[in-house]
Amino acid sequence: MRMVDLIATKRDGGKLSSEEIQWFVTGVTEATVPDYQAAALLMAIYIRGMSRREIVDLTLSMARSGDQLDLHDTVPFAIDKHSSGGVGDKTTLVVQPLVAACGVPVGKMSGRGLGSSGGTLDKMESIRGWSCHLELPAFKQQLRDIGLVLAGQTAHLAPADGKLYALRDVTGTVASMPLIAASIMSKKLAAGADAIVLDVKVGSGAFMPTVTAARELAEIMVNIGHDAGRKTVALLSDMNQPLGQAIGNALEVKEAMTTLQGDGPADFWAHCLEVAGQMLLLAQKAATMEQAKALITKARDSGRAWDKFRQMVMAQGGDVSQVDNPDHLPQASHVETVNAPRDGYAAAMDTNAIGWSAVHLGAGRLVKTDILDHAVGLILPLKVGDKVKDGQIIATIHANDPDKLAQARQDILKAITWSDEPVARLPHFYGTVT
Amino acid sequence: MRMVDLIATKRDGGKLSSEEIQWFVTGVTEATVPDYQAAALLMAIYIRGMSRREIVDLTLSMARSGDQLDLHDTVPFAIDKHSSGGVGDKTTLVVQPLVAACGVPVGKMSGRGLGSSGGTLDKMESIRGWSCHLELPAFKQQLRDIGLVLAGQTAHLAPADGKLYALRDVTGTVASMPLIAASIMSKKLAAGADAIVLDVKVGSGAFMPTVTAARELAEIMVNIGHDAGRKTVALLSDMNQPLGQAIGNALEVKEAMTTLQGDGPADFWAHCLEVAGQMLLLAQKAATMEQAKALITKARDSGRAWDKFRQMVMAQGGDVSQVDNPDHLPQASHVETVNAPRDGYAAAMDTNAIGWSAVHLGAGRLVKTDILDHAVGLILPLKVGDKVKDGQIIATIHANDPDKLAQARQDILKAITWSDEPVARLPHFYGTVT
Repeated sequence: MRMVDLIATKRDGGKLSSEEIQWFVTGVTEATVPDYQAAALLMAIYIRGMSRREIVDLTLSMARSGDQLDLHDTVPFAIDKHSSGGVGDKTTLVVQPLVAACGVPVGKMSGRGLGSSGGTLDKMESIRGWSCHLELPAFKQQLRDIGLVLAGQTAHLAPADGKLYALRDVTGTVASMPLIAASIMSKKLAAGADAIVLDVKVGSGAFMPTVTAARELAEIMVNIGHDAGRKTVALLSDMNQPLGQAIGNALEVKEAMTTLQGDGPADFWAHCLEVAGQMLLLAQKAATMEQAKALITKARDSGRAWDKFRQMVMAQGGDVSQVDNPDHLPQASHVETVNAPRDGYAAAMDTNAIGWSAVHLGAGRLVKTDILDHAVGLILPLKVGDKVKDGQIIATIHANDPDKLAQARQDILKAITWSDEPVARLPHFYGTVT
Repeated sequence: MRMVDLIATKRDGGKLSSEEIQWFVTGVTEATVPDYQAAALLMAIYIRGMSRREIVDLTLSMARSGDQLDLHDTVPFAIDKHSSGGVGDKTTLVVQPLVAACGVPVGKMSGRGLGSSGGTLDKMESIRGWSCHLELPAFKQQLRDIGLVLAGQTAHLAPADGKLYALRDVTGTVASMPLIAASIMSKKLAAGADAIVLDVKVGSGAFMPTVTAARELAEIMVNIGHDAGRKTVALLSDMNQPLGQAIGNALEVKEAMTTLQGDGPADFWAHCLEVAGQMLLLAQKAATMEQAKALITKARDSGRAWDKFRQMVMAQGGDVSQVDNPDHLPQASHVETVNAPRDGYAAAMDTNAIGWSAVHLGAGRLVKTDILDHAVGLILPLKVGDKVKDGQIIATIHANDPDKLAQARQDILKAITWSDEPVARLPHFYGTVT
């Protein structure tokens, strides 16, 4: 095969065969296809699209490009979740202990944050000593022992995806539905999931701005999952405002722990309940969503979910005293409130801008090598539809630099639109794709 | 500026600003834009196209990427021609002496052949000692002295084009009208032409298979010329059969010399007359095409054009005894005829396949580093519409290898379609774009 022929086929809107796609992915993995040819093909795919069969072939080829885990020697049924990324999205920290406490073991490999949405590992590393570096035998042992693991990529999963993503990032080909879907799903398939719950975010703080776009991506990913023989469900969930109230690593860990203890923000709990519920349904631990939610609520209220979280922190070397006393988590030196600039109703939030304001405080990375400040971030209880009085506290900024604090204050005020008229609250979910 | 933003603009069908295009071309020239980003942009340009303004900007930026000649210290008016490439296209060898003999000096920088169409320099190098390597002062001196130069690229013309072409060649982005037009015209503009006659070939042996496609390319190039302030005309000429009869380097030189001496194939002379006529019109040496053709015919019949050719050969170190006695040019060891396989009319020729049959004999290059065999090639007097008898000679193969000769025979017979019914002759031209 010649790469230039594959490029020409896709350039002209044709379809690549399964063999051609496998050959391309192998070439990328082994670096026998030069970057400039891969870049030309990625652009052709971006513009011309891919058929369902092509997307599945691409995903499976990428999944096969490195290690492929099989967790069946450890758990009877491997379940995973994925969030497309959002501001204040600490769902994994709560959902995994809940599901594990319901008797469904969950061993998850997570990523780090880049851009306006934080990474699960970054958040957990707010806890002193906690480590995501588990070799596969240790990963499996912990999964057997306590039914809950939160790790980095302990295996060499889908290296073709890593290489292609790096190239997409610099060639304007990130925002392609087939490429996004294949990237996400290839890692999930390689990680050995029998079932996958996808949390696809929609709105001003999400990669997908509209329900239509999010639904399209969700459908592609669910199709891939089904064609690869995995149970797959996608939720379309709102990201037109931050999820919960906390944004920033230690602040989000605190909020997750509060939620596991029964006292989290209502919107965040509703979200966790839905995601965990879908996981229990796929794992056949419940017959209906109502049953599932009852089990999950019981796992929280009984303290079993909280116990699971504590066990996981200890098993991975974390300082459990910080968990037991969240005030011992990293604290910012400057904490100031943001006050409503007027009477009125919160009408809209530029959630992405709010995410970036936290990044600029030090909670996230502008480039991969940036070192995080775990203490900083925002508490933003305000929700679209809330009625406020001029001067009322709408947010609290946690900063370690007064200039950055001042900037964050400006950013937050600029990100919120106010209305004189009452404004409807936002839904939590826009639908489910099965 | 960020390359990824330029890529995204064109990816989404937007227009690049003049500044962005200049920045990109400078980045390519100085190798500060990596190949993978250039490749992604080239693919986006291929699929999304470019506006007239963008194409002109790209051409001018590429023309400015290296040396820009000004020949006005040598000639009052610099005229150039360009052929889009075809099989048996030795037009330059005849047209330049004709035009020079009419009192219009022509100093031309030509290229080499790759693929099924030969290069002017390769053909001339059939003459022992003849060299295309002239430094610019020598180029200008010869232009002053005899009014005729046929050189390689004696200046560093449009290096951005060379780099982009090399990348297009391996990324499936050669066949883009804007990129083809910019590539051709950038070199002509950099070479300092005040006027340009473009010979755009159409048909089975040309890059453009249809008149519609050729006209589109011609219009883009003429627009570029006009917007850059150059007189520009394009001919759309037939390449559904080889031009003239000779294909192969020394064979084509012989045919060109015969034509200058008044005895060339009718179709080839008609072609030369039209191209040279357009050049005289642009140079204002004639008021009408009729006048121009009369002047050109006189330049041939008087022997002045032939003299010019001889002078040029001598000035560039060529062995004039080979010119005076063409039998002293390289001769192939095996010369055999091809005979008509049946009674009938020649209905169509796969001209590209005929060109490749000569390449495989050694007359052209499969890869840039191939060394040519100047002696080999074909004489193919057959024209579409000709009536032949079974066994009649339709071609002569000149080879230095019996196996290659046998292959060429098969290739030629396969490339010709026969009909029992009379078939119309092909036109020489399909129109002119001014």
